[in-house]
Amino acid sequence: MSVIRRLPRYYRFISELKNKGIKRISSKELAEMMKLTASQVRQDFNCFGGFGQQGYGYSIDQLHDEIENILGLDKIQTAVLIGAGNMGMAIATHVKFTKRGFTLSAIFDNDKSIIGKNVSGIEVLDVSTLSYYLKSNPVSTAILCIPQEAVPEVSQVLYSHGIRNFWNFSHYDLEILYDDIIMENVHLSDSLMTLCYRINDKNEKQKN
Amino acid sequence: MSVIRRLPRYYRFISELKNKGIKRISSKELAEMMKLTASQVRQDFNCFGGFGQQGYGYSIDQLHDEIENILGLDKIQTAVLIGAGNMGMAIATHVKFTKRGFTLSAIFDNDKSIIGKNVSGIEVLDVSTLSYYLKSNPVSTAILCIPQEAVPEVSQVLYSHGIRNFWNFSHYDLEILYDDIIMENVHLSDSLMTLCYRINDKNEKQKN
Repeated sequence: MSVIRRLPRYYRFISELKNKGIKRISSKELAEMMKLTASQVRQDFNCFGGFGQQGYGYSIDQLHDEIENILGLDKIQTAVLIGAGNMGMAIATHVKFTKRGFTLSAIFDNDKSIIGKNVSGIEVLDVSTLSYYLKSNPVSTAILCIPQEAVPEVSQVLYSHGIRNFWNFSHYDLEILYDDIIMENVHLSDSLMTLCYRINDKNEKQKN
Repeated sequence: MSVIRRLPRYYRFISELKNKGIKRISSKELAEMMKLTASQVRQDFNCFGGFGQQGYGYSIDQLHDEIENILGLDKIQTAVLIGAGNMGMAIATHVKFTKRGFTLSAIFDNDKSIIGKNVSGIEVLDVSTLSYYLKSNPVSTAILCIPQEAVPEVSQVLYSHGIRNFWNFSHYDLEILYDDIIMENVHLSDSLMTLCYRINDKNEKQKN
């Protein structure tokens, strides 16, 4: 796993320490909290210039601000969410967008019984107005919570309006259609199958 | 990324081909569909004994059944879901458990307005009865959709009743508390921060 994949986890732990009012932490203490090794922590932080002086521990405030800066959480991206079914609703209400570098500007669905509803202070709009919306509102990112079969058509509208960044909960590998997009996939079924594999693999090993 | 992490994705693609009635596929065709290289596909399949004869392509039915077998999707694990808020509701209604090697046997919450509701044919039970439920029902896996601060107490009940497998949507790294558990984390905020990083990293590179 690359250091980039580990940075959000560092950020979560360090944010908690900051909230608790803790000022300094050694690589050893942080490593113990996160079940990493101290040398792994030092090596990761060295990738970004060090974040501090060895032997004195790291300043929590400095770590927090520098990782926030590296992750780009201070430069807010505008996102639209497509699909306000159970998953879309969960995302819209559960995720702290502004703390993660995003603002959610609009939600779209094609279900007449959902259109017009208010979700987290945002009105659900008719997906047939998506193209019109994107013409007059700058959006960099789309969150896809739509059924697999709806992805090609919806993504074509998004792509044609310049959207290149996708947080994808649909079971469709969008990178197959477009070469120049940034895709962050959350494939829940893949995650569940991986869990299934790991359980069975452990059971098999215990049998032998 | 290990081949194990790629297997669920192979399984998804191959299941779709099977549903379309396709009988054979070459490593080259499969690689093109999945944006991998043919040698990557062959190398992955060789890890598990090959799945077929080179030059003749792979049998879709055989691939499907062998990957299903390796993932252990045929041996059904019994799971309980803790937390029927937006995220828990989305998981309960959105995820095809039986196709992914699991059966969802019960849902628990502490909110009086949710307890007693029917979600995907399952009644939401009072979490205060969790211990009682686990005494009389064999459960191998827990799905955690509860707030961070509730995790230590709830996980202690689950662990004390022998549950060692967790699908974790809570922003809490449970492996810090227990050494002998299997954890599959879905940290949505980490995923969103990774997307944020990748967008900003691309923007920085385009500036330079």
